[in-house]
Amino acid sequence: MITQTSLSEMRFGADSDRSGFDAAFIAIEVARLLHEKQDAAIREFLESQELADIAALIDELEIGDDLAVLRLLPLHDQAELLGYLRPRAQTDLATRIPRRELVALMTAMSHDERADLFKQLDEEAQEAILPALSKAEREDLRRLAAYEEWTVGSVMTSDYATLKPEMTSTQAIEALRMQAIEAETIYSAYIIDEERKLIGVVSLRDLLTARPRQSVAEVMDTEPVWVRADDEQEEAARLVARYDLLALPVLDNNDRLVGIVTADDAMDVTEEEVTEDFHKGSIVQPLEMSVAEASIALLYRARIFWLVLLVFGNIFSGAGIAYFEETIAAHLSLLFFLPLLIASGGNAGTQSATLMVRALATGDVRPADFGRLLAREVLIALGLGLTMAFAVSVIGVWRGGPEIAAVVALAMITIVMVGALIGMCLPFIFARLDRDPAAASGPLVTSIADVLGVLIYFTIAARLLSL
Amino acid sequence: MITQTSLSEMRFGADSDRSGFDAAFIAIEVARLLHEKQDAAIREFLESQELADIAALIDELEIGDDLAVLRLLPLHDQAELLGYLRPRAQTDLATRIPRRELVALMTAMSHDERADLFKQLDEEAQEAILPALSKAEREDLRRLAAYEEWTVGSVMTSDYATLKPEMTSTQAIEALRMQAIEAETIYSAYIIDEERKLIGVVSLRDLLTARPRQSVAEVMDTEPVWVRADDEQEEAARLVARYDLLALPVLDNNDRLVGIVTADDAMDVTEEEVTEDFHKGSIVQPLEMSVAEASIALLYRARIFWLVLLVFGNIFSGAGIAYFEETIAAHLSLLFFLPLLIASGGNAGTQSATLMVRALATGDVRPADFGRLLAREVLIALGLGLTMAFAVSVIGVWRGGPEIAAVVALAMITIVMVGALIGMCLPFIFARLDRDPAAASGPLVTSIADVLGVLIYFTIAARLLSL
Repeated sequence: MITQTSLSEMRFGADSDRSGFDAAFIAIEVARLLHEKQDAAIREFLESQELADIAALIDELEIGDDLAVLRLLPLHDQAELLGYLRPRAQTDLATRIPRRELVALMTAMSHDERADLFKQLDEEAQEAILPALSKAEREDLRRLAAYEEWTVGSVMTSDYATLKPEMTSTQAIEALRMQAIEAETIYSAYIIDEERKLIGVVSLRDLLTARPRQSVAEVMDTEPVWVRADDEQEEAARLVARYDLLALPVLDNNDRLVGIVTADDAMDVTEEEVTEDFHKGSIVQPLEMSVAEASIALLYRARIFWLVLLVFGNIFSGAGIAYFEETIAAHLSLLFFLPLLIASGGNAGTQSATLMVRALATGDVRPADFGRLLAREVLIALGLGLTMAFAVSVIGVWRGGPEIAAVVALAMITIVMVGALIGMCLPFIFARLDRDPAAASGPLVTSIADVLGVLIYFTIAARLLSL
Repeated sequence: MITQTSLSEMRFGADSDRSGFDAAFIAIEVARLLHEKQDAAIREFLESQELADIAALIDELEIGDDLAVLRLLPLHDQAELLGYLRPRAQTDLATRIPRRELVALMTAMSHDERADLFKQLDEEAQEAILPALSKAEREDLRRLAAYEEWTVGSVMTSDYATLKPEMTSTQAIEALRMQAIEAETIYSAYIIDEERKLIGVVSLRDLLTARPRQSVAEVMDTEPVWVRADDEQEEAARLVARYDLLALPVLDNNDRLVGIVTADDAMDVTEEEVTEDFHKGSIVQPLEMSVAEASIALLYRARIFWLVLLVFGNIFSGAGIAYFEETIAAHLSLLFFLPLLIASGGNAGTQSATLMVRALATGDVRPADFGRLLAREVLIALGLGLTMAFAVSVIGVWRGGPEIAAVVALAMITIVMVGALIGMCLPFIFARLDRDPAAASGPLVTSIADVLGVLIYFTIAARLLSL
């Protein structure tokens, strides 16, 4: 029999090993309790859990049950929990919540998450909700929802805390206390003039350590780091990371404060960005959603483009081989080394590109470092090429005698050096052309290195072996 | 003539475009002012700058000048600035600071950064510094420095704020005010018993919104998320991101509080981790430092291993080709399609692996999803294979007639499907074996797909063409 005890045990289990929260397993027990109308037991269980975990639980529940469990939480927790759900799960749940209840929920949500949810609702649902909101909230929602997907505006929130410069630190702390329920954070507060222009930022920590009668104007930072609402969202993430900020103020083109980007939202942007970089640096077109949520058709489309494109790239390699058919027919043992030589050029190039793309992305390397790095790359590539040539010439002597060994060794040095230098230069060239260096890695480098590898190998073979 | 004006203009320039802080350019001006003994002008400039930017500036200055500029800052800013320098630059600077001054600086540094710096000093410098510190600080330093590089302990800090459960919220806020100078953060405070066991966590926000006489015990979260000091540091980063924490408490194996990991340190761990994943998923062995700082010898070593290993992998492909020498000699036009077919298998496999590795890393996909995803992958791979086969058969008819076209088309479907399924399964197999799925991508998939590609292609060719 399922009693309250079993859930407390689970709670204990989940608690003693923090990654041990098994949402699927707990969902089964919660669903049973729900059907036995043991709401109190569930509520008690939920109280001891983190909202992120409850969101994972709700994600696992059947339609209907999920809404029932959500409703067992206090309104503010419900609103916050929605932010932890994946976009699709969030919309799915929201469309099943009665209009009136949804309006109450959205009023309690943080402004950025509310706008994100709103954008995903269909037009009918949007138009039903808008009139039920207050005028100020309606305008706030419309303004936030208007920013394009890639902008800072689309990730900022407008529920920031504000202070007046003439307040004493004691008054300021009291003012923050009053704003604590509404504001996304009260640890950074923003000081604006009558035109809403940003004139300073102050941390709660600085207010607490200030003398009680010291004014906000004396304590605040008058030259804070900020970002424009229509900048790219990655710029906000970069600034938050560089300056270790808890929140970054966002200004419109008239220098008016329109929102803030909090550190946790900046982290989400970085995670999205990294996934995009992974896909860009690979041969998959970036997906707008998680792999688990993407449809078969979408995944097919994200992959077929590169696959077909690379077929045409490889036709050049094939044509190169066809061009040297005579040489090959005369020395069929050359074929043994073909995969090995071609792959080595691509591998060396991919290595250089990987290192440079990531270093450019993290700022460890700047475009200005190109000359110094190029000189170094030549030395490294020479070292790699010599080592590889030695390894492969041993096999060469064994498979085809000293002549073949010489051809293969010479081809290896040349191919590795050419591959490595292409891999190193391409990301810098892309950066110089204001394109994303990540697009320069993997497939492009390998394709170029493949074609050049075939040409270098058989040219050297044709020359040396016809002597 | 260089005057104060030029620096103010630069400040303005840097300010109106926040990424426009050109450290190299500003360093030249600052160096000149330094040699003209215009310390006041430099100091005024520094006051308007963020510490992260001043660190970039100091990094650009000549030896001697960097120390002179550092000394123009107040002691606390000097201590904080050291944390923004790259490890090597930090050590380099620290070894040039007179012992007494260094001890004062290290006393003012945050505990985690101090321990990191200490670990990098040579033994002589370490032994010179230890006796100059207070006993408590010496022990703290030794304890923090003792954690291994990959553990939570190595990124946590011990300067956290503590409260007693019986304090009223007003007393607690006052207590945090007193701890604000020393503590890394006062926005999360930790409640411990006499044995230093963690009994709760409370945020400054909750203290501020509590009733003045409400006790800490009533407001605190008694089941906070925590992590063990000897867990992997990635676990701490994962928890901070999942639960949107500002700081995560760290417990030893006796449940005693030994430190906290702050959100910005967690972000640094994530960045390192992502770089490591980039390198792991590639054919470069993870570097312990940035590419810009790594020596030629280190980079050579990080790359040669994979390059040579993959040569041996490719020998199998070469051997496969050699095995089918007769078939090839009889149908030399088959060679034209060799690069194209082999590459397509590797490409399709790399695509699947890229998608799965990243999705497993972000938690979008779990090992339990394997069955569902496999079924989907079969359909996608079939679609990709058919499209590719169609494209390549057109070229096949043109280059070698209908027989060759049939061979090439059939080989393409098989190779793409086999490649895609290997690429999809390997990360899951690695995850199941408790190894990092990232290691399963790129090179391994391509090597396996290459060998199988050669075998599949020529086996089909030998069968069909001998009919």
